[in-house]
Amino acid sequence: MTMKNLRIQLLFLFISVFLSQEIIAQRPPAISSPDVHPDKSVTFRYFSKTAKEVKLSGEFLKEPVDLKKDTTGIWSITVPAIKPDIYPYNFVVDGVSVQDPNNTYVFANERFKRSIVDVPGDQPLAHSLQNVPHGKVSYQYYESKTLGVTRQLLVYTPPNFDASGKTKYPVMYLIHGGSDTEETWTKVGKSNLIADNLIAAGKAKKMIIVMPYGNVRPAPMPDFTKDVINDIIPFIEENYPVDKNSSGRAVAGFSVGGGQTLNIGFTNTDKFAYICSYAPFTATEEFRKNFDNWSPDAAKINQQLKLFTISVGTDDFLYESVKKNIAMFEEKGIKIKPLIVDGGHTWMNCKLFLANSLEQIFK
Amino acid sequence: MTMKNLRIQLLFLFISVFLSQEIIAQRPPAISSPDVHPDKSVTFRYFSKTAKEVKLSGEFLKEPVDLKKDTTGIWSITVPAIKPDIYPYNFVVDGVSVQDPNNTYVFANERFKRSIVDVPGDQPLAHSLQNVPHGKVSYQYYESKTLGVTRQLLVYTPPNFDASGKTKYPVMYLIHGGSDTEETWTKVGKSNLIADNLIAAGKAKKMIIVMPYGNVRPAPMPDFTKDVINDIIPFIEENYPVDKNSSGRAVAGFSVGGGQTLNIGFTNTDKFAYICSYAPFTATEEFRKNFDNWSPDAAKINQQLKLFTISVGTDDFLYESVKKNIAMFEEKGIKIKPLIVDGGHTWMNCKLFLANSLEQIFK
Repeated sequence: MTMKNLRIQLLFLFISVFLSQEIIAQRPPAISSPDVHPDKSVTFRYFSKTAKEVKLSGEFLKEPVDLKKDTTGIWSITVPAIKPDIYPYNFVVDGVSVQDPNNTYVFANERFKRSIVDVPGDQPLAHSLQNVPHGKVSYQYYESKTLGVTRQLLVYTPPNFDASGKTKYPVMYLIHGGSDTEETWTKVGKSNLIADNLIAAGKAKKMIIVMPYGNVRPAPMPDFTKDVINDIIPFIEENYPVDKNSSGRAVAGFSVGGGQTLNIGFTNTDKFAYICSYAPFTATEEFRKNFDNWSPDAAKINQQLKLFTISVGTDDFLYESVKKNIAMFEEKGIKIKPLIVDGGHTWMNCKLFLANSLEQIFK
Repeated sequence: MTMKNLRIQLLFLFISVFLSQEIIAQRPPAISSPDVHPDKSVTFRYFSKTAKEVKLSGEFLKEPVDLKKDTTGIWSITVPAIKPDIYPYNFVVDGVSVQDPNNTYVFANERFKRSIVDVPGDQPLAHSLQNVPHGKVSYQYYESKTLGVTRQLLVYTPPNFDASGKTKYPVMYLIHGGSDTEETWTKVGKSNLIADNLIAAGKAKKMIIVMPYGNVRPAPMPDFTKDVINDIIPFIEENYPVDKNSSGRAVAGFSVGGGQTLNIGFTNTDKFAYICSYAPFTATEEFRKNFDNWSPDAAKINQQLKLFTISVGTDDFLYESVKKNIAMFEEKGIKIKPLIVDGGHTWMNCKLFLANSLEQIFK
């Protein structure tokens, strides 16, 4: 290397260091975390010279495990082979839950800060980014007259979307869990990639998936039902070429959104032919109003609904409550297709539940 | 309240607590931070029983300030009236930089974790969400043959976008700073709202804004120029009704992206009639290759370019370097419209720079 090159290299080094100092201010040394190894074991690292205890809490673990600190203040642990999937995790530093500072893949949520680790499979998973035609996810604003605010929602349109109006697309309205955001179904639930993959495989119809923001505070939850019916559906039907028959509409959701799904769907069986509720949280004023002493015209509803499913994992802390929900609907004579799987109240299961619904609706 | 109601209320309370315990695992008590007060002063809070020192570092501060801890472990500080804008900030806990755990508005970046505080103006600011027609921002994937990967980019389409092909839209290719992501220009730079507001005011033409992911690692930076020219532009022109003349194309970017803008623009003056570089970082191999011993046909370039601007703040740590860049272009006889403002290497200035460009291009 000539002296000139050397001087230039040194200049770069100087400027880069200067740049990072200036722009990035105080931050821990750049360490790599998480490191997913070929054997699916994963190393997690956290930097702190002062912490007394650093634990790893992850949905691939039965209980939090301790990281060990080295002489440089880097805490680490390697977790043995993890079943391929996308998992939320966080560190617990002296009792305080924190994201992984070195991981940019974060869980979209309003109440907790968790990071995400993606353990790839040897074969592509339902949510894997594959070499297939991709749809897109649009962030847009709509006026909610119901709530008196401008809100954001996400709209998935399928590959080779025809905006001309010649094609009328069916629409799934897909609701996140309590304290999640309108981004959680794409960023954690990978709804867009799951749809891309099923459409490419010929297992799902081309459809639009609308992901609104379902949390209503401080207003009561029934307002969200009104928001969906009076604001969101008209907004979508005004702006997208969609099938406006009930057979072209599905409502689905997880946890609190699964409860909202039951409320929205069964108070509007003329508008939704597909109701897909995932691990619903139903201990709400609205659910009781709708379903305590409910005497439905089961025959009519069974004729209106092409699919009513409730999905849940046997380790879900809501499992017993969901079994009661299922029994209630069966008691009332409502045709229901339950999906009971292993696992808990997790987004790993959400992805399964969604894939299962997408394969059945609009057919 | 009847006994039945009381029992129901207690049931809710129990289930809610249970729900939060189960789903949210360990986390600090929900505290409100940041709290923006009517007088524009802002209270920041952080919970830690074990920290020895908690500082607040924010781009509204000359230097970090100390938070004070109360008996419950909640650290807090109230910063006097802050000039209305959107500012990045973070806590520094015993020397470790962390996001505000109670703020869901985070800075999209790969190397640091910062939170964002939005101090609203008494009048709407350039980036404020206003009651005007809104465009949308689409997240999509494209194949980069140059880089051999499938990458995500964001595409802003203006209000009442006409997909029919009858309208041909001009396109700005807008590049983030080093270690930022393809989301930084919308989530921190509010490019979509700035465009919405300027279009509604009749100050900017309806245009498409493409926000790619500009970081290329470990491959050399010139690969991104190839990615833009050979992969991104063809992808956009295949999927959107756009004006394919150079007079319908602008390239813009901040910091490292500002340097990329100069490289992309001046090696392709036949393709871009508008080159808008914001606080460019130019100490790169590629920039030297392109501009050391550069002997341009200034007359021809000045004819090809309808606008060439370099913007920078006088407190920017790159200010001296940017002044040299400007002098170099002037020396070579290239017509340039510098924009020199107060302030540093910040996204507050980025928003000004972008607004300034949007008002001038495609006219």
